[in-house]
Amino acid sequence: MNGVELHVAFLPQEAGDCRGRAVAVIDVIRATTSLLVMAERGCDEVVVAPTVAAARTFGAAHPGVVLAGEQGGLAPRGFDFGNSPAAFADADLAGRRVVFATTNGTRALHSARGAPVILIACLRNRTAAARALSDEAVRGGFDITLICSGREGRFGLDDAYTAGAIVDAMLRESEPAPDLTDAAVAARALFDAYPKAEVLLPTTSAGRNVIEIGLEADLNVCAEADRSALVPRIGERVRLLEA
Amino acid sequence: MNGVELHVAFLPQEAGDCRGRAVAVIDVIRATTSLLVMAERGCDEVVVAPTVAAARTFGAAHPGVVLAGEQGGLAPRGFDFGNSPAAFADADLAGRRVVFATTNGTRALHSARGAPVILIACLRNRTAAARALSDEAVRGGFDITLICSGREGRFGLDDAYTAGAIVDAMLRESEPAPDLTDAAVAARALFDAYPKAEVLLPTTSAGRNVIEIGLEADLNVCAEADRSALVPRIGERVRLLEA
Repeated sequence: MNGVELHVAFLPQEAGDCRGRAVAVIDVIRATTSLLVMAERGCDEVVVAPTVAAARTFGAAHPGVVLAGEQGGLAPRGFDFGNSPAAFADADLAGRRVVFATTNGTRALHSARGAPVILIACLRNRTAAARALSDEAVRGGFDITLICSGREGRFGLDDAYTAGAIVDAMLRESEPAPDLTDAAVAARALFDAYPKAEVLLPTTSAGRNVIEIGLEADLNVCAEADRSALVPRIGERVRLLEA
Repeated sequence: MNGVELHVAFLPQEAGDCRGRAVAVIDVIRATTSLLVMAERGCDEVVVAPTVAAARTFGAAHPGVVLAGEQGGLAPRGFDFGNSPAAFADADLAGRRVVFATTNGTRALHSARGAPVILIACLRNRTAAARALSDEAVRGGFDITLICSGREGRFGLDDAYTAGAIVDAMLRESEPAPDLTDAAVAARALFDAYPKAEVLLPTTSAGRNVIEIGLEADLNVCAEADRSALVPRIGERVRLLEA
């Protein structure tokens, strides 16, 4: 990976031009963890919708589709699921199609537009995501950007930490090592600063919000590192619905 | 400081609405360090210009004004100074007026517009800046934002570290402690991760650039913490020139 630049955008609006870059999008609490768990549960395809209304419309036009998403953190009226990794972990989604409404996650996914490769990353697939990014960078001659979703336009420590976990994995998995931007160095330092994700995540703004709405069990699922070798990607298991 | 929110914007475009917030702007390598050293050297007023051309025009209209600023890191043709804290540290600026052209610093200062208080901060005045922010927050009932300049639209580890140094000082100086956003927590963790600024700064993107142009001595001046009790502010020692 000589000369491969590894950058972290701590917010979607920092992602810049993603052409020529392999991108991983991170919304560890909870959208990208949910997307991964849906894949783990055998889900055929997730259609990511920018709003709850768009998901409803899509659901009405496609009978049999599973409705999932959040409004104020909880499942909107009439939806089958919220944005709860713990609930998806208990669900049988084998062969099902899900339409999934998430605000921050959608914004981050859209900010990656133009990228030749857009992967879904979280702690559960951090090493697998790092390997997939390395492979894509080598194969395509791409630089790499990890895009953090943040929370309502602000930096999220949960996502920055997860980006750091992936940077750390990439340094272990890639030879030669990629060139880290200042943001990638900082993300890795944050990962090093907190030895236990299950201790950090509940203290973050996103984590506290999940606890407030009574879904603390979701944080355990979000904090589990390297539980999955799956790396969903846009165009394969995941599709973006236009606004 | 009960209920005072302390936030860090890692880039000017994240600063959001600064009304009702006491703001400190940070461009430790090198603009805010330069601004502070000019004040230390007795400079009467610094007029911050958005471009080299604007500084030249201002200089032509105001005989006797000192021209300072950077183009590719160095002093533009005909300027008295670059953006070099080490050069300012040796200069006699007592009673002088300086017009100072800096791109990243100007962008950050402009992003703070609307804030009732805009302070100039760096490592050299980190504790003094923390105290001034606490005082202003208490007096005005303000929340607090530290705005990092970053480098060409990207996160700068030097500025994030400096923000963390100020967060750390505020936690020591303020009783009760302010409420830290995720970004403030992260900045402080970065400060904790690097015990020596003089070791970190040369490794950052901005630091490497300064070394490349042969101005490594500037980094020593930038890395010195708590050397000054001065806290220049917009409207007092520092004025923004309209574009």
